[in-house]
Amino acid sequence: MADTDATAPRVQFETHPKSYRHWRLEVEGEMARLTMAVDPDHPLRPGYELKLNSYDLAVDIELADAVERIRFEHPAVRAVVVTADIDRVFCSGANIYMLGASTHSFKVNFCKFTNETRLAIEDASQHSGVKFVAACKGTTAGGGYELALACDEIVLVDDGASAVSLPETPLLAVLPGTGGLTRLTDKRKVRRDRADVFCTVAEGIKGKRALDWGLIDGLLPRSKFDAGVLERARALGAAQKDVPRGAPIALAPLSPSVKADTIRYQHVELAVDRGSRTATLTVHAPGAGPPADLASQGCDLWSLRAFRELRDALYQLRFNEPTIGTVLVKTRGNPEHVIAHDRALADRASKDGFAREVRLLQARTLRALDATARSFFAVVDAGSCFAGSLLEIALAADRVYMLDADQVAVHTSPANGGALPASSGMSRLAIRWLARPEMVDKLLRRGAEGPIPTDEADELGIATIVADEIDFDDELRIAVEERASLSPDALTGMEASLRNPGAESMETKIFGRLSAWQNWIFTRPNATGERGALTLYGKPERPAFNWTRT
Amino acid sequence: MADTDATAPRVQFETHPKSYRHWRLEVEGEMARLTMAVDPDHPLRPGYELKLNSYDLAVDIELADAVERIRFEHPAVRAVVVTADIDRVFCSGANIYMLGASTHSFKVNFCKFTNETRLAIEDASQHSGVKFVAACKGTTAGGGYELALACDEIVLVDDGASAVSLPETPLLAVLPGTGGLTRLTDKRKVRRDRADVFCTVAEGIKGKRALDWGLIDGLLPRSKFDAGVLERARALGAAQKDVPRGAPIALAPLSPSVKADTIRYQHVELAVDRGSRTATLTVHAPGAGPPADLASQGCDLWSLRAFRELRDALYQLRFNEPTIGTVLVKTRGNPEHVIAHDRALADRASKDGFAREVRLLQARTLRALDATARSFFAVVDAGSCFAGSLLEIALAADRVYMLDADQVAVHTSPANGGALPASSGMSRLAIRWLARPEMVDKLLRRGAEGPIPTDEADELGIATIVADEIDFDDELRIAVEERASLSPDALTGMEASLRNPGAESMETKIFGRLSAWQNWIFTRPNATGERGALTLYGKPERPAFNWTRT
Repeated sequence: MADTDATAPRVQFETHPKSYRHWRLEVEGEMARLTMAVDPDHPLRPGYELKLNSYDLAVDIELADAVERIRFEHPAVRAVVVTADIDRVFCSGANIYMLGASTHSFKVNFCKFTNETRLAIEDASQHSGVKFVAACKGTTAGGGYELALACDEIVLVDDGASAVSLPETPLLAVLPGTGGLTRLTDKRKVRRDRADVFCTVAEGIKGKRALDWGLIDGLLPRSKFDAGVLERARALGAAQKDVPRGAPIALAPLSPSVKADTIRYQHVELAVDRGSRTATLTVHAPGAGPPADLASQGCDLWSLRAFRELRDALYQLRFNEPTIGTVLVKTRGNPEHVIAHDRALADRASKDGFAREVRLLQARTLRALDATARSFFAVVDAGSCFAGSLLEIALAADRVYMLDADQVAVHTSPANGGALPASSGMSRLAIRWLARPEMVDKLLRRGAEGPIPTDEADELGIATIVADEIDFDDELRIAVEERASLSPDALTGMEASLRNPGAESMETKIFGRLSAWQNWIFTRPNATGERGALTLYGKPERPAFNWTRT
Repeated sequence: MADTDATAPRVQFETHPKSYRHWRLEVEGEMARLTMAVDPDHPLRPGYELKLNSYDLAVDIELADAVERIRFEHPAVRAVVVTADIDRVFCSGANIYMLGASTHSFKVNFCKFTNETRLAIEDASQHSGVKFVAACKGTTAGGGYELALACDEIVLVDDGASAVSLPETPLLAVLPGTGGLTRLTDKRKVRRDRADVFCTVAEGIKGKRALDWGLIDGLLPRSKFDAGVLERARALGAAQKDVPRGAPIALAPLSPSVKADTIRYQHVELAVDRGSRTATLTVHAPGAGPPADLASQGCDLWSLRAFRELRDALYQLRFNEPTIGTVLVKTRGNPEHVIAHDRALADRASKDGFAREVRLLQARTLRALDATARSFFAVVDAGSCFAGSLLEIALAADRVYMLDADQVAVHTSPANGGALPASSGMSRLAIRWLARPEMVDKLLRRGAEGPIPTDEADELGIATIVADEIDFDDELRIAVEERASLSPDALTGMEASLRNPGAESMETKIFGRLSAWQNWIFTRPNATGERGALTLYGKPERPAFNWTRT
């Protein structure tokens, strides 16, 4: 199996409820219902059927879209019931035939995307006053249970048959890789010895034991199930009344112009050079400051649109440009406009739901950058505008190359004070100055006075490498060439380690500990070899294991 | 390359300074000197030369032994200079030819052992008033720099040539896997963008830049090096005067009786059944309570000897029994004697260095169990004595099977209150009751009243599975058979996740995040394939990489 498939069509990440094939989103006042009804005949790529509400990337792209639209387009919603429209099945997890047929790189990026979708559900719950109830009226297996784990409450039908389960280890010789193990122990705080039993029982656990062990929050007979779930969701939603809401903002498609080597959005441009395995990602500042009424620009508000575009560009890199290893990040435009936009969001975020949602989306986008397994070098040169929310991109990058010349500077804004936290919960400035936390305040105070030129940015810890106009281009070119010569795998592991100093959180544990183990297991013959359990799933042959413990 | 090598001779983990081939330990009053002078001609196994102070497992076994003997046999020592006896070389890290020729399983277990050795250095620094200074009077590369990172201070010679480096990624397409990346960012708090530069520059960083970036603590010219290092070590040692010291206790060899399927120590027995891929590990309680003067029994004190034996048995499992997947842990004897020993240590640990060291060794041994990639099922049956420090073994196990019968009970002691923390720093009871922290106190209060019988142990969260005499043997047998049928790799990843709920620490990050990424990278063709960089190191061919980013 080749690790790249040049003939595979590009994956598209934009969709709309009207185009959903696998989910239905219904909104009524403060309540929403998200119904999974996967169309088996429309997988992302031919070769497998999406039976029993199993999912692939196409299904998850719709879920991610729905959760985001609830936040922007239906701000009145306080609770979401996640349910299914298949008899006696909630969701049976990621489609195993899809996984078995996928390249290692695709599997890993698929899991990353689905992890981000589930974290976005929790982000909405934690910050946006939108609570989720998983209505498990049937089989809730593997990724299906992991989806339920991302919800605030899990209600299981008490019908003597329906169970929750994580059968990945016993059936497929892999892990529940979409946060399941971490959420079991760290979110639901299921006792680790019981979690051990649960994760090795392929048929799962049902009824009262599931409740006693904390695997679910409620157990209802079939006759009272729908009404009981709705009641729980209403009660959860009613407690969200103090979260400010904003005007509904429709999310129009980004509709970039896609050519062979470039994707051009309104504010973002991704240009790839496959020969040198590098890309240039350019983000443009807004042409003007924000309007007094942010919502008046709708989804064209720069702060929203530019970060949606940036995120889409990152997904393009992950899925459609597998061999691009190094990304030069540039910015162009007037930094004052960026700062004005950041300030407008900061002023309004605590009172206005729309401003809050825009900031949360910016934060998620920056975390997606942190979790993207490519080397990012920020280029702070003449004409750049690494200011506030765009400075966070530089702080997320593996290195910052800064030209030592007049007019070149970086700029801070209220966005740098912790409003756009990394997965650990720390601000990127706090991460940068783990050794000297007092420098964060010093830097923010200095930034409040005006542009920070190169020499000061160097002293204040922003610039990694400083060079003057004579050396800058050569310095950068050599660094990019050197980076491009290194093993992609070693870089992925190195960056995943160095980007996450200090505190850990459930989110960092999912992307670090859990995903790293899963990546390892995905490479092991016991799972993906010719006679591995994932490979042979559904076939008559039994898997053959190498019994060496590692 | 086969993943097991039945013809390989058993690795032995016991040694003594008189038998060292690669290190010299010299003690003078409060100061010790540990000199690395690796004998190139005596690797653990034939096939490679240990040039330039590169190390293999045999070298690290001596280092681990030396650090432990300093704590027990030379309790007056307050500072250790770690140095080398090779011209212009401190240590060039793990031997690359050894790594290239090793099985995946051996590589992973080798890294685990060397990680534990470095963590033991930090444990001695943190808890035993023994500070370490790395005297880097020459090349300090890869694992050599990782060894230095484990020390309290790193002094580099300022000779215009000697550098510290982590060249693993650029030269070998792997990670610095012995904690290097984590210690850079989390212990030394080197800025993550500078760490990125450092880890990709094969030649490393020397002189003032190394100092400015926080990669080292001191820089001395060759002429003043030895005296300057000694001065720093003396100063560090002088600050350790408030740490209570104990009587020197010689660590006699354990000298177990080794047969084909059993290793019998004085208090511990390991019996393997390679056909079913299971082992039984039995720990016996002491025959009597402790003497009034603990040191009078020397290294025969049960609390010390039994845990040294347990640790050796774990190493035997890791290196010499690669296919044993499931370990039944049993205890036999009088629980009151265990409790009396635990209490004696608890009463003395704050005043008596020997008692403190014994507890610290018990804690390290239990953490070694946590980090051992085998499934552990504790069996609490008639005649068992899971009390205090032995109850910790059950709490470290993946499951606890408890017989519901008269006289069967578990017992607590002062050892369960946090004196033997897991790698996260949490007690194993706190880990068990992450969901309801108040249960820890309740359990300890109940345990202080006397034995906790099965029904109560079930309610208090100790027992995973309870069965009566009719069902117990079958229940356990079936569980063991089921466990033995699962993929070893999936179990390793699952256990590494479930055993570490809640807080993370530098230590858990090393064993979780960093080691998991390294394991993955070790399986990737870019490193270990026929044309991988690790495989081809030292050969004229250039490695060939698959450029897909994952």
